[in-house]
Amino acid sequence: MATEGPCSTPKPGVFDLINKAKWDAWNALGNLPKETARQNYVDLVSGLSSSSDSSSQVKPEADREQAGYETLVMTSEDGITKIMLNRPTKMNALTTQMYQEIMLALEAASKDDSTITVLTGNGSYFSSGNDLTNFTHISPDEIEEKARRGAILLRDFVGCFIDFPKPLVAAVNGPAVGISVTILRLFDLVYASDRATFHTPFSHLGQTPEGCSSYTFPKLMGPGKAAEMLIFGKKLTAAEACAQGLVTEVFPDSTFQKEVWTRLKAYSKLPRNALRISKQMIRNHEKEKLHATNAEESRILQERWLSDECMNAIMNFLSRKAKM
Amino acid sequence: MATEGPCSTPKPGVFDLINKAKWDAWNALGNLPKETARQNYVDLVSGLSSSSDSSSQVKPEADREQAGYETLVMTSEDGITKIMLNRPTKMNALTTQMYQEIMLALEAASKDDSTITVLTGNGSYFSSGNDLTNFTHISPDEIEEKARRGAILLRDFVGCFIDFPKPLVAAVNGPAVGISVTILRLFDLVYASDRATFHTPFSHLGQTPEGCSSYTFPKLMGPGKAAEMLIFGKKLTAAEACAQGLVTEVFPDSTFQKEVWTRLKAYSKLPRNALRISKQMIRNHEKEKLHATNAEESRILQERWLSDECMNAIMNFLSRKAKM
Amino acid sequence: MATEGPCSTPKPGVFDLINKAKWDAWNALGNLPKETARQNYVDLVSGLSSSSDSSSQVKPEADREQAGYETLVMTSEDGITKIMLNRPTKMNALTTQMYQEIMLALEAASKDDSTITVLTGNGSYFSSGNDLTNFTHISPDEIEEKARRGAILLRDFVGCFIDFPKPLVAAVNGPAVGISVTILRLFDLVYASDRATFHTPFSHLGQTPEGCSSYTFPKLMGPGKAAEMLIFGKKLTAAEACAQGLVTEVFPDSTFQKEVWTRLKAYSKLPRNALRISKQMIRNHEKEKLHATNAEESRILQERWLSDECMNAIMNFLSRKAKM
Repeated sequence: MATEGPCSTPKPGVFDLINKAKWDAWNALGNLPKETARQNYVDLVSGLSSSSDSSSQVKPEADREQAGYETLVMTSEDGITKIMLNRPTKMNALTTQMYQEIMLALEAASKDDSTITVLTGNGSYFSSGNDLTNFTHISPDEIEEKARRGAILLRDFVGCFIDFPKPLVAAVNGPAVGISVTILRLFDLVYASDRATFHTPFSHLGQTPEGCSSYTFPKLMGPGKAAEMLIFGKKLTAAEACAQGLVTEVFPDSTFQKEVWTRLKAYSKLPRNALRISKQMIRNHEKEKLHATNAEESRILQERWLSDECMNAIMNFLSRKAKM
Repeated sequence: MATEGPCSTPKPGVFDLINKAKWDAWNALGNLPKETARQNYVDLVSGLSSSSDSSSQVKPEADREQAGYETLVMTSEDGITKIMLNRPTKMNALTTQMYQEIMLALEAASKDDSTITVLTGNGSYFSSGNDLTNFTHISPDEIEEKARRGAILLRDFVGCFIDFPKPLVAAVNGPAVGISVTILRLFDLVYASDRATFHTPFSHLGQTPEGCSSYTFPKLMGPGKAAEMLIFGKKLTAAEACAQGLVTEVFPDSTFQKEVWTRLKAYSKLPRNALRISKQMIRNHEKEKLHATNAEESRILQERWLSDECMNAIMNFLSRKAKM
Repeated sequence: MATEGPCSTPKPGVFDLINKAKWDAWNALGNLPKETARQNYVDLVSGLSSSSDSSSQVKPEADREQAGYETLVMTSEDGITKIMLNRPTKMNALTTQMYQEIMLALEAASKDDSTITVLTGNGSYFSSGNDLTNFTHISPDEIEEKARRGAILLRDFVGCFIDFPKPLVAAVNGPAVGISVTILRLFDLVYASDRATFHTPFSHLGQTPEGCSSYTFPKLMGPGKAAEMLIFGKKLTAAEACAQGLVTEVFPDSTFQKEVWTRLKAYSKLPRNALRISKQMIRNHEKEKLHATNAEESRILQERWLSDECMNAIMNFLSRKAKM
């Protein structure tokens, strides 16, 4: 395959979109040998996923820990099941494995005897979003299949949040990026540390909104504030996200854990069927629309991932990183 | 019927839900004789409905008063029809009679020559919501029929607000609870005294949202703020309710009446057909959805009223009251 | 035709609505001769459209100007196409010609190679809304046809904003009235000078909401705040409009132009397909509903324009003006 070294094959026809995308992507790298180009990509990913400050990282209490997860810690007590993202040194960036473990954990939480389920992050980040290594180590002839599978994974992942049957709470302990922001609108309560930020730089990477945000964000905050975030990539503080309704309440970082868990323990004592039914009554008004939106957003992203523009945006991001 | 004295009949089968509910409810009362249990229930209701501070109670001006209502005072002047809830010593708790009179009053107001209709409360409360005596004096074999009738009454009551054809204004003179909060989203303007509070403790009593609030509240304030109120029973101040859009404007209690009526008298001079048509244009976008939501919420509440959990929640509330 | 001088023809039957409207309108003018009545109408219009402070009027840079527009200045650079309303001495009131030129300009902007399209106003106003001269110089036997055409023009005009395929930004340089307010909800970003105000006095002129506002405003700001604007004609400051989500961000008037254009130039460098697709994803969720709303609102306004109440409201407004 002619994907190594400087690009010299003739530019493919306009309808051969996938090959054209590959061609342009590699072409954009100029004379870099293949391994250097790949290394740049990896550097980008590393740059994104390894600068985590892990000082505030929580040691999970092993005695209440449920086995079988490598990227999560799942615990249950006081009527509350807690799912904690547990790749703190990678800022809880979501790998394929992690998406799948979160889905399994949600499935388990939906069936256990807890009243409330909480998603939070270990370390200083809530989650830095999709781990860009999901896009690497892909040989050009795999791209189409990888995009197809990625779209299915995304759709299934978001679908679990749409369908979750009990009150679902996000304890946003630190910065949230990408899909870890968009899914927040699918939670019943979103508590945030004042250290948290909310950033969806889709356009900057040539991508488009997911997590039902193309529907939920304008509905929540109006089209202008939604466009700032989803189209133009504006990063929000916790206070701004609260003013727009994406966050339900903001707490000082120093008392965040204490205040959130005190609150949730009180809530978990309420009649659990009433809580569950009320949550479902609210969700049912938009459940069908959310699933349709999720399917359409995943379909569009699949196309985007194969586009020149998306590949070039990632490459440009990479080369800017490399120059710094 | 074996509903007196300590419960000793065998627990009924799981499919005999209604009898099971009765069984568990009485069982939960332990060895209390029937009349004591009933008295506790009445105490609860009394505790809720008789502690009203009636100091700020308004003497209706009899000369403009329309006859035929026992629980309301209905007056009309300056193009404004005013419906005032008039059980101030019971904090304007809504009895079955009161629901029916409000529906009659709305029907009359929709046909009179006024431009604007206003609902307000006499005394220190706007309304403490559903009068819990509606649930008492029910013999166990009546429960199913009472629940069925209660659901129909609820649906018809809320339906009158959905269909009201003229600009409808709430002058929330004091605290509002339960259905007197949820229906506010169906008004065109909601003016509140800064003494008003907004409380929907559905889960605490094992119940679920009504008044279309499962649909309207998340649409209005986002799912997080709606869940705080409807699922977790958070009480809002007037300023908080205004920030969430449930209240249109807050006035100091000392000038509330003066400012509201001055405002409304000015509005009532505007071209009445334009006002009426504009109101209907806005309402028509969600009228069908509101009726469907109202029917579904009423159906779910009917089931809830027959559930163990709801009965137990009320009994628990009662026994906590009794210990204080 | 007996439409000159004091009205002495018999009042027509109730089903002959259009003629009745004409009859009542002229009748309301009492003994004024036709020319005086018309002059009053023109005075009203002049009073509305000529008091503009043109001091802050911008001289368009002719070298980048696109030819063919009499009421607009259209320029394109840095990936941004700017459409500037250019009747500053008339406060950018929208004449029939101007509606048509804006539609042509949007059509051109949708097809050019720019990334972002901006609508703004020259002079001190953004736009004073529908130019009331559109209602004058109409002989009574033309009224029905004029109303029919007006409704089509309105529907087509608003439809262009619904369908616009790229990110669309409003730079609201000063006060906005009527349809120049309602269409703002159809933009992706709305930046406003702190000198801007937002006023939709539909009821005062016997008219009803347009620009999809009967649907979009309650969805955006809740029914109460929407009713204040659309039903009761409350004028909002820029800060208030921002709090309600109608405005995305407010800038001090002194730095408005600089800050807005700096921001937009940065945005215009983002991947243009991602921007365009994201914008369309958001819009597609409500596009069908917006078109249906637009058609219905236009149909209702066509009826309103032929009603006694609307004609009388304009006449009353006129006679109040004349007395000042």
